[in-house]
Amino acid sequence: MANRGEKKKLRGRAARMQGGRGSGRATQGHVRLWGRHAVEAALKNPRREFRKLWATHEGVESLDGELPENFPLEYAGVQDLERLVARDAPHQGLVLECEALDDLHITDVLSGDPTRPIVVLDQVTDPHNVGAILRSAAAFNAAAIITQDRHAPPEGGVLAKSASGALELVPWVRVVNLARALEDMAEAGYWRIGLAGEAEEDFASALPAGPVAIVLGAEGDGMRQNIAAHCDNLARLPISNLMESLNVSNAAAIALYAVAMRGS
Amino acid sequence: MANRGEKKKLRGRAARMQGGRGSGRATQGHVRLWGRHAVEAALKNPRREFRKLWATHEGVESLDGELPENFPLEYAGVQDLERLVARDAPHQGLVLECEALDDLHITDVLSGDPTRPIVVLDQVTDPHNVGAILRSAAAFNAAAIITQDRHAPPEGGVLAKSASGALELVPWVRVVNLARALEDMAEAGYWRIGLAGEAEEDFASALPAGPVAIVLGAEGDGMRQNIAAHCDNLARLPISNLMESLNVSNAAAIALYAVAMRGS
Repeated sequence: MANRGEKKKLRGRAARMQGGRGSGRATQGHVRLWGRHAVEAALKNPRREFRKLWATHEGVESLDGELPENFPLEYAGVQDLERLVARDAPHQGLVLECEALDDLHITDVLSGDPTRPIVVLDQVTDPHNVGAILRSAAAFNAAAIITQDRHAPPEGGVLAKSASGALELVPWVRVVNLARALEDMAEAGYWRIGLAGEAEEDFASALPAGPVAIVLGAEGDGMRQNIAAHCDNLARLPISNLMESLNVSNAAAIALYAVAMRGS
Repeated sequence: MANRGEKKKLRGRAARMQGGRGSGRATQGHVRLWGRHAVEAALKNPRREFRKLWATHEGVESLDGELPENFPLEYAGVQDLERLVARDAPHQGLVLECEALDDLHITDVLSGDPTRPIVVLDQVTDPHNVGAILRSAAAFNAAAIITQDRHAPPEGGVLAKSASGALELVPWVRVVNLARALEDMAEAGYWRIGLAGEAEEDFASALPAGPVAIVLGAEGDGMRQNIAAHCDNLARLPISNLMESLNVSNAAAIALYAVAMRGS
């Protein structure tokens, strides 16, 4: 959590900037971010390497903090920015091309503060949902989100916009084998609760006092059988039988809230 | 809540169907819905008047229940359906054109079950968010959502898809004057709690035992001054200062969950 209250973090970052190499196309391994919260959070993230910022004058003025003098900034019109982003993307006058974040290893997370929950996503592929889950994870001080490499969206503009800056704040671990990662969590003392509509136990009653990992599957199909088998128990949110399920980001938000309210 | 467990509701609806009048364009006052949950829920809703269903054979087979013999159905290919809906909309082989639902009056809601919460949205305009809020409102048995006519998205396909059927289940009252509606709620005995990041009281502690209305403003700007002034108190969700706010549908879901968990 690098930037709590560091209002002027954008200053003095010149040493790590890469001057004017942006080509106008996000190339392999690079990520294009847009929108004020997403871009501002990336600019404040010491783990980010930047390639180029295209922006309107208003966009630059909306940033909290100042860009270093030699930052690779190119002023552009609104129409130019629209050509750089996904269709109808609300860029708010700011488009930043940067390197994808370095990979994190699960052991980095499991050696951290065990009072913070971990969110495990099995095949949640919609970038809006994963972004919103990152946002809630930051808001409720989660230690990390963990996804399986092959079944999760890549870091990208839509996801970052939806995360509203949280992509830069919440450690995101991509693993090759999610079942194995759940075994690692158990060894580290985490109680793994899978959210499942067909479960009988209520989520709030299933919550232990100690370290907890919340496991969520894709809407519709739910979590895979082998992932459910790697949970210590399955539990449900107390919803009416009028609806099969909640939106997965809404379910994650409620689960994180319930963890935050444990014992209160 | 018309269709709890009525698995065969699609049968025998011939009397109210309108035969083959669909033109291929959604005209004024009509709504085009897509996706299995949204279309199936609309077909089961006795308050809906239908114009035409365009569908693939697989789409029709995926429906729970059977269409009446003289239903205005036209089989179509996937590419034809794509031309009928918003770009990249996941139609799942089903596109239904129907009439917008009849307007509801706030007195219909206020004379109902006072143990069910009401959700009031001030200037929440994103149809994905309003749809997800309808879905959570149905899941947590809310009495209604209330929006201001001029500052809410119309009923439509993106919203209905995001609501996953809840558009047909949750009474949605559109009012001309939201402040006046809040006064009506107070007279009917509802305690009006506005969610506001800057509030000091915690939402769960602010909850009364009796009838409650949850008031949410737009992300960014929050609720308007006059709307906040019409709340009995303002309260916040217990989020970290790393994030300014939650996604508004996530905040609504948590608030509805907290209401459902009162006293438990």
